[in-house]
Amino acid sequence: MDIVNTTPHQSSADKVLPHEATVSAPVNIAVIKYWGKRDAGLILPTNSSLSVTLSQDHLCTRTTVCAAAEFGGDRLWLNGVEEDVTASARLCNVISTARKLRAAVEQADSAAPRLSTWGLHVCSENNFPTAAGLASSASGYAALVSALGTLFKLPQSAAELSRVARVGSGSACRSILGGFVAWQAGVEGDGSDSLAEQVAARAHWPQLQALVLVVSDRKKTVSSTAGMQTTVATSPLFAERVRNVVPRRMAVMRAAIAARDFAAFATLTMQDSNQFHAVCQDTFPPIAYMNDTSHAITNLVHAFNTAVGRVAAAYTYDAGPNAVIFALHDDMRTLVQLLTRCFPRPDSMPAAAFYEDPFAVFASPDLVGRDIDDPAVAALAKSIGTFTAGSVRRIIHTEVGDGPRVLPLSESLLNHAGMPKHARA
Amino acid sequence: MDIVNTTPHQSSADKVLPHEATVSAPVNIAVIKYWGKRDAGLILPTNSSLSVTLSQDHLCTRTTVCAAAEFGGDRLWLNGVEEDVTASARLCNVISTARKLRAAVEQADSAAPRLSTWGLHVCSENNFPTAAGLASSASGYAALVSALGTLFKLPQSAAELSRVARVGSGSACRSILGGFVAWQAGVEGDGSDSLAEQVAARAHWPQLQALVLVVSDRKKTVSSTAGMQTTVATSPLFAERVRNVVPRRMAVMRAAIAARDFAAFATLTMQDSNQFHAVCQDTFPPIAYMNDTSHAITNLVHAFNTAVGRVAAAYTYDAGPNAVIFALHDDMRTLVQLLTRCFPRPDSMPAAAFYEDPFAVFASPDLVGRDIDDPAVAALAKSIGTFTAGSVRRIIHTEVGDGPRVLPLSESLLNHAGMPKHARA
Repeated sequence: MDIVNTTPHQSSADKVLPHEATVSAPVNIAVIKYWGKRDAGLILPTNSSLSVTLSQDHLCTRTTVCAAAEFGGDRLWLNGVEEDVTASARLCNVISTARKLRAAVEQADSAAPRLSTWGLHVCSENNFPTAAGLASSASGYAALVSALGTLFKLPQSAAELSRVARVGSGSACRSILGGFVAWQAGVEGDGSDSLAEQVAARAHWPQLQALVLVVSDRKKTVSSTAGMQTTVATSPLFAERVRNVVPRRMAVMRAAIAARDFAAFATLTMQDSNQFHAVCQDTFPPIAYMNDTSHAITNLVHAFNTAVGRVAAAYTYDAGPNAVIFALHDDMRTLVQLLTRCFPRPDSMPAAAFYEDPFAVFASPDLVGRDIDDPAVAALAKSIGTFTAGSVRRIIHTEVGDGPRVLPLSESLLNHAGMPKHARA
Repeated sequence: MDIVNTTPHQSSADKVLPHEATVSAPVNIAVIKYWGKRDAGLILPTNSSLSVTLSQDHLCTRTTVCAAAEFGGDRLWLNGVEEDVTASARLCNVISTARKLRAAVEQADSAAPRLSTWGLHVCSENNFPTAAGLASSASGYAALVSALGTLFKLPQSAAELSRVARVGSGSACRSILGGFVAWQAGVEGDGSDSLAEQVAARAHWPQLQALVLVVSDRKKTVSSTAGMQTTVATSPLFAERVRNVVPRRMAVMRAAIAARDFAAFATLTMQDSNQFHAVCQDTFPPIAYMNDTSHAITNLVHAFNTAVGRVAAAYTYDAGPNAVIFALHDDMRTLVQLLTRCFPRPDSMPAAAFYEDPFAVFASPDLVGRDIDDPAVAALAKSIGTFTAGSVRRIIHTEVGDGPRVLPLSESLLNHAGMPKHARA
């Protein structure tokens, strides 16, 4: 993250307006999964994890924070709807931690305005619909902490700020950095060594791309916060994962990324997703985040790899039925063709609403799936079978991305009065 | 199993007819699961397992074996269709092992007819449709071995004969005995100590009943024979299950059965089913036997237990999506009501074809589900939701059963010429 100076700006009425900062932050997808806390208050994990930051061009949270002495207190708007700030202990925790860091800045510099004592207005929007079922807490807390870091001119590095984001949502600490990011579990009781570290920058592996498959689901799901602690308490297999499997896998995954070894990266990504869902199934009561469509996607990826005779694609699933599929640029066209054949969009849905093609993989989005005539793909698709149209609701084609971006004042989500520009009724 | 004498019988033409025996054998459902072989040839398991034998009144395989010097060789009919005996190494193994035991009998008694040298005709039928998706290899091999034991007048005990059944299909060894049966993994390389043992007789716990829920499925499934060895080879969590979890659970399960402690029995049954499917999910490629309907049944059972404030029902799933649910007699009526409300039969299906009511739980089968008006059940069903009609295709209500039964000659599946009475075209 680039920490840039914020400047108070003047209204037409010549009144000094509140200090503010606007930041966007990315989603990340874990390839070695975080599941289980050793300290629920500080959000200290039972094991290290490793993720890929996805491009903010396609999925991101944008957050504006604004401090003013005139504000009566803290207020928060999420996607245009005001929320009770005090209702979330985690949110309060993040804001008060950031204020403490700001207070230290003010103590060292008597000229610094006393932002730590002012009210805050926070306005946050996701560029992806909530209905997409994509977890927004990681990008959301990463954006909030980055925005506060910018507003408060905090001297801490991104890695140090990741500790603050971690207190909001564990996986948020990994969205503070771009590229390939490890979250070290750490051993200290105060969480001082439980932070994010960049394993490789975005530019290290430009061939790597990803598809987010949004899967239809009717189930109520167990929240990851509740689910992971039930796993820690009840799964007899979980300790084995934490003690023996993950430490080994972290080392292998780092090496695979360093070597840009897609087969190794992909195999381990699939295996660790599988094991995460295995310990969920070993939980009591058991937790099933994947559904029949998810399992069908898994089988399709294995069938694809078998058909091409190498590990050309990898799936991974978080605490829900959506799949993220990794593949190298050169395999994407074939893979998307296969996916759109086996998981057709409803006839009523335009191709571009189903599959976004930012990389111009297809000459025309109308060609996706049913019209392109690659006989090998068609034969493979036939052997896999066709699933109910709409089982996969949307395919978002994206790539590895950078860390939080500080945006210009023109991108602010708050107006000159510090109120949301796009409030919903 | 009662070993009774078989007597050659006379035809109207006064010709001495072949020696024969007819036996029926039960299905069993494991509550501590068998998954993984340490020796694939002898079918020696990686861990001990424990099962409940289900009543043959509702689910069984019936097998007639007939030996005659005149038979040109061995022949086999399964559900009316002739199969190639030599195609199955396991079947050949079972028959040749039984013949060796018979040869010892003949060596000790020079008057005994030389059955071990004669051809065999084997005719086997399940009383449940193959379409029900219920595994028939356990009851099938148990019936075959019991029939051969009877025909050959083998002096071996049922436990000793279970070793022979084990060579046909691992779980078949548990169908050689009634009630609650443990299959000791054993440690010997020749499998001599890997056999079944009755933990408690059927009469020990007459309150215990079971429902078999036949679940619709469109997936091709991985065979258990192939699947379990992939698990042994690829699941990092599997060894932990074998080494530390199962031995502890075997002891707890024996104690729960001895004490007729339903809550302990049920909890462990659910946990071990969950863990079996967890190690399947940790396999690479992963194996998913349960589908969305299976998971919905799991959630229903937990919701039911929560609603009644005690552990009143338990689910377990083998290598497929079908559920077996255990409950005590007094809870069955409520449980069946709930199940038939949440998993309605298609409107076109008569109630009796969907749910068999051998225990007269309901006054009339027409009352099942939609018409009975228990407000508490209706409210719980509403909170769970209603699944697509036909997701559960059939409910078979059964109970704990006895071991293989020797049937009278009148029940033979072969005619006087040693050919099937009910051959299919």
